[in-house]
Amino acid sequence: MAEHLSQSELDYPFKLLEYFNGFRVSKVIFSACELGVFDLLLKAQEPISAQHVAQELSCSEDGMERLMDALVGIEILEVETKDGTALYSSSDVANLYLAKGSGKSLHDMIIYQSQTIYPLWNNMADAVREGKNQNEKTFGLPSEDIFKALYRSEEEMLKFMGLMNSSWVLDGHDIVTAFNLSGFQKIVDLGGCTGALAREMAKAWPSSSVTVLDLPQVVEAAQKHFPQEDDAVEFQSGDFFSDEIPPADLYVLARIIHDWPEEKCVTLLKKIHGSCRPGGGVLLVEALLFENRRGPVTAQIFSLNMLVQTEGRERPPSEYTRILEKTGFHNVQVCRTGKCYDTILATR
Amino acid sequence: MAEHLSQSELDYPFKLLEYFNGFRVSKVIFSACELGVFDLLLKAQEPISAQHVAQELSCSEDGMERLMDALVGIEILEVETKDGTALYSSSDVANLYLAKGSGKSLHDMIIYQSQTIYPLWNNMADAVREGKNQNEKTFGLPSEDIFKALYRSEEEMLKFMGLMNSSWVLDGHDIVTAFNLSGFQKIVDLGGCTGALAREMAKAWPSSSVTVLDLPQVVEAAQKHFPQEDDAVEFQSGDFFSDEIPPADLYVLARIIHDWPEEKCVTLLKKIHGSCRPGGGVLLVEALLFENRRGPVTAQIFSLNMLVQTEGRERPPSEYTRILEKTGFHNVQVCRTGKCYDTILATR
Repeated sequence: MAEHLSQSELDYPFKLLEYFNGFRVSKVIFSACELGVFDLLLKAQEPISAQHVAQELSCSEDGMERLMDALVGIEILEVETKDGTALYSSSDVANLYLAKGSGKSLHDMIIYQSQTIYPLWNNMADAVREGKNQNEKTFGLPSEDIFKALYRSEEEMLKFMGLMNSSWVLDGHDIVTAFNLSGFQKIVDLGGCTGALAREMAKAWPSSSVTVLDLPQVVEAAQKHFPQEDDAVEFQSGDFFSDEIPPADLYVLARIIHDWPEEKCVTLLKKIHGSCRPGGGVLLVEALLFENRRGPVTAQIFSLNMLVQTEGRERPPSEYTRILEKTGFHNVQVCRTGKCYDTILATR
Repeated sequence: MAEHLSQSELDYPFKLLEYFNGFRVSKVIFSACELGVFDLLLKAQEPISAQHVAQELSCSEDGMERLMDALVGIEILEVETKDGTALYSSSDVANLYLAKGSGKSLHDMIIYQSQTIYPLWNNMADAVREGKNQNEKTFGLPSEDIFKALYRSEEEMLKFMGLMNSSWVLDGHDIVTAFNLSGFQKIVDLGGCTGALAREMAKAWPSSSVTVLDLPQVVEAAQKHFPQEDDAVEFQSGDFFSDEIPPADLYVLARIIHDWPEEKCVTLLKKIHGSCRPGGGVLLVEALLFENRRGPVTAQIFSLNMLVQTEGRERPPSEYTRILEKTGFHNVQVCRTGKCYDTILATR
């Protein structure tokens, strides 16, 4: 039997009510991020009043005070009262992850979650009913071509790229060092977006050359909006479904397989197998489900996210192994990082 | 200094990511509730497959399986595998609070949170910016008359009444027994909605007579949709702002004061003071903020909810005391229940 919520919930459902309130806690953080509260507090360098913050950010004083008090309640801000005025300051956690400037900023991830994922999830019951994504109902977009929906405008594409970029800030290093990849000379990150994961790869394995392959408009936007001095990675334009895949020793597919139904994954992996040099392989980066269906919660929730937004799903290792072996790969090794994303390495 | 999130978050922000995911966990539970998953599992009385649930509820099998797996992940359902088939069963907590039938069901609270509060909170950043509710932006409703917005259709009014009804199921008993009310002969619950709290009051203090006063359409709907055999409470139609308030020994204002700006609260309390019999009093039921602004998180979040949906706010005890004394009441006593709602008793 699986564990279940403590029996003390039967007396009063504290944990359950916390779950019900989850969406409001998310939006407290997201709204503060969108309004620039964490950036201002970081810049201020000293405790400031809600009135001050409201003025600087052109917000109502009353609304800002309530928002900042709730952030104190969830321990993201701190408050002290001096001469009758409440003065707020940021926590180290907020400065590191919630303000824009820091190298570990999750700002772009938050904007995407707040403005795109939150409204999509309002239609989750319909997604479960229909078994398909809710891009049409939520945003009036055709549900057939998911990347046409994801990239429906340059602004939306940049938000999505920001999401990808900031999530590798967290898990990138663990992912690229999960296996010894030093034997792979030429590495191609298929659908590598802004190059954030590819750069972690190049840093960890400096004797390899790392190329990002992505759609022309993505490569253009990556170089324009996410540039890097002395960039260690190269960019190449192409569609890995319709164009030729360049020969390489290792192909990285980070959060690609989870976008598609099995038949498309099989087509793609067969094509990769065909381009892969002898001795080469493929590295999948995904949130891996447990085989026993009992977690991790993050991966289970991501799988529902794939339902509401894409044509794909998250899978347990056995599924990836089956698909990889079906497409000619073998020696499948799995590494769970204990964080959001895990890796699977298979050789040709 | 306030406590803040553990420094270990600086290595990896597990707690912060949990907060980001909060909206998705809420919607996992809400969607399952809307689709009838918990009702079906309760009725089934034995573990059943996701395929079975999907068929019964006219849902996609794939979507239902993902949803139920996520419910296992958050320990609301249980799963075991028999002959290769995953069989799901409900937990005691889900049977008690999430299925429709039980006397402690929070089903109606969930429907209201999912379908009304969740979309409203998508406009929280604007609420903070403008300092006013977002009924117009979210639902195309005028923001001036909040009860016109709340009761915009009979369906919406019934949902709101369901919310009120199910929240007193949780906190009602603690609230009505927080003070010894046996000395109050005639009790009137102003804006008492379905009568759920009034019934708790009548049960706890059987020598008192308890009357619910609410708008005519609310009283009509309460008697039609939330009837009770041998009802211990009486209903009376009226608008406590524009009509006369019947004389009584104790007036209950449960989640009424928090809907309105101070001037309207003062007007109402003065009017109540005028109708109150000598030796009588008023019992406020609200989620009380701490004076030091550091919690409770629930009350802080409710105060933001008041911003996005009403003209009011949550307040700390000192504020209620000030307003009560300003309107002629005295001997203000505060009782925190440790649950969502607290009480304040003041005498005329």
